[in-house]
Amino acid sequence: MFFKEGEDGVKVYRLQPVQILALGFAAVILIGALLLKLPISSSNGQSTPFIDCLFTATSAVCVTGLVTLDTGTYWSLFGQIVILILIQVGGLGFMTFATLIAIILGRKITLKERLIMQEAYNAFNIQGIVKLAIYVMTITFSIEALGAIFLATQFVPEYGWKKGIYFGIFHSVSAFCNAGFDLIGGFRSLTPYVENVVMNLTIMSLIVIGGLGFGVISEIITNRNYKKLSLHAKVVIFATFILIGLGALSFLVLEYNNSKTLGSLSLKGKILSSLFASITPRTAGFNTINLSDMTVASKFLTIILMFIGASPGSTGGGIKTSTATLILMTVLSVIRGREDTELLKRRIPKDLVYRAIAITFISFILVIVVTMILSITQEGDFMEFLYEATSAFGTVGLDLGLSPRLNLIGKIVIIFTMYSGRVGPLTLALAFARKQLCVSKAIKYPEDKILVG
Amino acid sequence: MFFKEGEDGVKVYRLQPVQILALGFAAVILIGALLLKLPISSSNGQSTPFIDCLFTATSAVCVTGLVTLDTGTYWSLFGQIVILILIQVGGLGFMTFATLIAIILGRKITLKERLIMQEAYNAFNIQGIVKLAIYVMTITFSIEALGAIFLATQFVPEYGWKKGIYFGIFHSVSAFCNAGFDLIGGFRSLTPYVENVVMNLTIMSLIVIGGLGFGVISEIITNRNYKKLSLHAKVVIFATFILIGLGALSFLVLEYNNSKTLGSLSLKGKILSSLFASITPRTAGFNTINLSDMTVASKFLTIILMFIGASPGSTGGGIKTSTATLILMTVLSVIRGREDTELLKRRIPKDLVYRAIAITFISFILVIVVTMILSITQEGDFMEFLYEATSAFGTVGLDLGLSPRLNLIGKIVIIFTMYSGRVGPLTLALAFARKQLCVSKAIKYPEDKILVG
Ligand SMILES: [K+]
Ligand SMILES: [K+]
Repeated sequence: MFFKEGEDGVKVYRLQPVQILALGFAAVILIGALLLKLPISSSNGQSTPFIDCLFTATSAVCVTGLVTLDTGTYWSLFGQIVILILIQVGGLGFMTFATLIAIILGRKITLKERLIMQEAYNAFNIQGIVKLAIYVMTITFSIEALGAIFLATQFVPEYGWKKGIYFGIFHSVSAFCNAGFDLIGGFRSLTPYVENVVMNLTIMSLIVIGGLGFGVISEIITNRNYKKLSLHAKVVIFATFILIGLGALSFLVLEYNNSKTLGSLSLKGKILSSLFASITPRTAGFNTINLSDMTVASKFLTIILMFIGASPGSTGGGIKTSTATLILMTVLSVIRGREDTELLKRRIPKDLVYRAIAITFISFILVIVVTMILSITQEGDFMEFLYEATSAFGTVGLDLGLSPRLNLIGKIVIIFTMYSGRVGPLTLALAFARKQLCVSKAIKYPEDKILVG
Repeated sequence: MFFKEGEDGVKVYRLQPVQILALGFAAVILIGALLLKLPISSSNGQSTPFIDCLFTATSAVCVTGLVTLDTGTYWSLFGQIVILILIQVGGLGFMTFATLIAIILGRKITLKERLIMQEAYNAFNIQGIVKLAIYVMTITFSIEALGAIFLATQFVPEYGWKKGIYFGIFHSVSAFCNAGFDLIGGFRSLTPYVENVVMNLTIMSLIVIGGLGFGVISEIITNRNYKKLSLHAKVVIFATFILIGLGALSFLVLEYNNSKTLGSLSLKGKILSSLFASITPRTAGFNTINLSDMTVASKFLTIILMFIGASPGSTGGGIKTSTATLILMTVLSVIRGREDTELLKRRIPKDLVYRAIAITFISFILVIVVTMILSITQEGDFMEFLYEATSAFGTVGLDLGLSPRLNLIGKIVIIFTMYSGRVGPLTLALAFARKQLCVSKAIKYPEDKILVG
C-alpha cells in the first residue's frame, strides 16, 4: 500500500505508522529471542527454552525488567550483551535506529518515515522530527556515559576494572532506559547497595531523566528557563516531582518501623530507600529493599505509582503522568463548576481529555483481565497477581517473586502484557480498529442526555 | 439563607439542595443510632456501644448491609423494627418522606423543596417532581407487599405464621431497598436457601427492580413499549441485563468445580447461585454462597461489579451502570475516531462525560484511600480490605468477614465510606466546594495541548 499525500490521504492512511511501529517492536523482539536461544547466550552453554528467550527479549525490548531467569547468573556475557542491545533499541525506539542508519547511508528521509517517527515520539507535528531523533541519541549516549562513569566508581573497587566498567555501562543503560535489568545475581536487584549514596543518586537521576521524555529533556536543555517551557513540559515536570515527593514521604511513614525494610537502616538509608522506592515505579524496576517484605499499604501505593508510570515519549511506561494529571484536573474542573478542563491557566480541548479517558480505561481493563487470568492459572495471592499485571503493563519490572514461578500460560500472558504496555494499549486498539479507516464523512447523531452517578 | 428565584439566584444557591440532602441523611442516621442505643433495642436488654449503634444505623440508612453485630440474634424485635424503618427511609430517601408528610398536612410544596427532591432523584427537571414522589411510594409499597407475600410462602412453613410473615416483610423491604440486612442469624445471610427457587427468584427480582431506579420503573409502567422509553431508561436496562448475564456466566465458569461453593450443588443450584452472585453486587448485599470460599477471580469480579453498582435514582449505590456505560462508550468513540461520545445513535454532551469521569475518579480515590487506611489499621489481607472498602462505598454490604472484626478506627472509616457512597462522592465534593458559588462570570483561559499516553 502506498502513501497518498494530501489531507484526505493522510486521514485514510493515518494508522499505517502505528501499525508499523507495533510490528517493528514485534520483529525486534523475535530477533532478540532467536539470539538468546543460541547455546552461547547461556552461561551453561545449553540452549534455553524458547518461551524464556521470548520472555527475556520482550522484557528487554519493552524495557520492562521482569525476568524468569536471573540475568547476572543465567546468561553468558554474549547473552547479556544481546539483552543490553535490546534494551538500548527498545529504549530509544527502533525508529530512531532506522533514522540513524538512514542518515549514515545518506538516504533522504521520506514523509512517511517522518510520520512514523512522529507517532513514535508522540510529537505534535512533523517539523524537526529528524533533528529530534539526532538529539535523542546524542542526549541518550551522553547521559548514559556520564552515568556509567559514576556507577563504575562504585563497581570497580568491588569487581575490578574490567567487570566494574562493564557493570557501570550495563546498569547505566538499564537505568536510563528504565529497563530495570541488573547483573547483581540471585534476583537481588540493587538491594546490596541500599545505603550507597553515589549508586542511589546516580541510578535515581538516570531513571528520572529517562522518564521525563526526550521532548521535555530537549526543551530543558534548549530553554533553561521555566517560563519558556511548553505547557506539556511544565505539567510533566510538576507531576513527576509531586509524585516522587508524596510517594517518598508515604513510603517513609509506612515503612519506618518495618524491621524487614526500612526499620534496620540508618536515617540516611531510610531517606535514600524511600526516595528510591518512590522513583523506581516511574517505571524503572530496580529495587533496593525487598519488595515482598513491604507493608500492604506500600505495595498498593507501588501498584498505583506503577499504573501512572512515566511521561510520554520517554523510556518509561504506564498511563503517563500527563494523562493522570489531565484526568485529575478534569475532576477538579467539574467540582469547581468549570465548563472545560483547566490546567495552569490553559483550557484543554475535549478530544485530549477523551483520549486520556480512553488510555486510562483500556489500561484498567488490560490490568484487570491479566490479573484475572493470572489468578485462575497461577499459584499465589491476589496482591501478587495485581502487582505482576500492573508491573508488566507499566513496563516496570518490579515483582513480588511471581515471575520466576510463572507457568507457560502465565509467561505468555505477561509477554503479551509487556508488549501492549510498551506499544500502548490505545495505540494497539487503534492499530486494529478497522472502522477508523472510514469515518471521515460520518453522520452526526442528535444530542441526548442520560443520568450519571 | 433564603432562596432567591430567577436565573442568577438559582445559579448562586444551587448547592443548597445538595447540602440539605447530605445533612438530612446525617440527621436520620443520628436519630437511628440513638434509638438503637436504648437497652430495649438489644436482645439482651443492655445498652450497645455507641459506635456499633452508629455503624448499624449508617448501614441501614445508607442501605448498605455491612454489620458488626448479627441483625437476627443481637437486636431485639424493637431494634430490628428501628433498622427496618431506617432502611425504608434510606431507600426511599428522606425527602420522599418529607413530601409525604407535607401532602398529608395539606401544605403547599415550595419551589425550594421541589429543587431538593430534583437533586434527590437526580431528575432532569422540576416538573412532575411531586407526582414522581407519590409514584415512588406507591410503587415501593406495592412491590414490597408482593415480595413479602412470596417470601412468606417460604418462611411461614419454617417459622410459623407470625414470624414467617414478619420475616417476609423484613426481607422484602431489605431486598427492594438493596439493603442486604437479614434476620437468618449467625452472619449467614441467605446461604440456607441456596437451592430454594421461590426465595431466590423473589429476592433477585426485588433487587433488580429496586436497582433500576424509580424513574426507569415509572417509565416502564407508563410506556410498556421499548421504543418509547427515554435514552436513559434504555441504557440502564441494557447495562443492567448485560452485567447480570456476563457476571452470572463468569461466576458459573469460575466456581463450577469449586467444592466449597457451586461444586456440591445441583445444576439448578449452580445456575441459581451464579445468577444470585451476579445480581447481589448491584448492590443488594445478600449472599447464598459463602463469599470467602470463592476463587480469587470471582472475588475480584465481585469487587468490580460492586464498584459499578446499580442505576441512578435507585436504592442501590456504586458509580452507577449509566456512568460506566458512558465511559465505555467514550472509549469506544475514541477508538472509532468519533468526535463525540455516541450511545444508541445519540451524541452525549461533553459536560455529562466530564461528570461521569469526575464521579468515577473520586470514587476510585475514595476506595483506594479507604483500602489504604484499612490495611494500615486492621488485621487481614489486601483482598479483604479492597472488598470491604468497595462494598462500603457501593453500599453493597457483602464482606469477607472483616466487618465484625473491625476495630474502632475501622468502624469509623467504614461509617464515613457508607455515608459518602450513599450521598455520592461527587455530591459531597460539590457540597463542600465553596468555589462553585462564584464561577458564574469566570474568565475563559486560552486553549493549549499536552501529550497523553
Ligand atoms: K522497567
Ligand atoms: K446493600
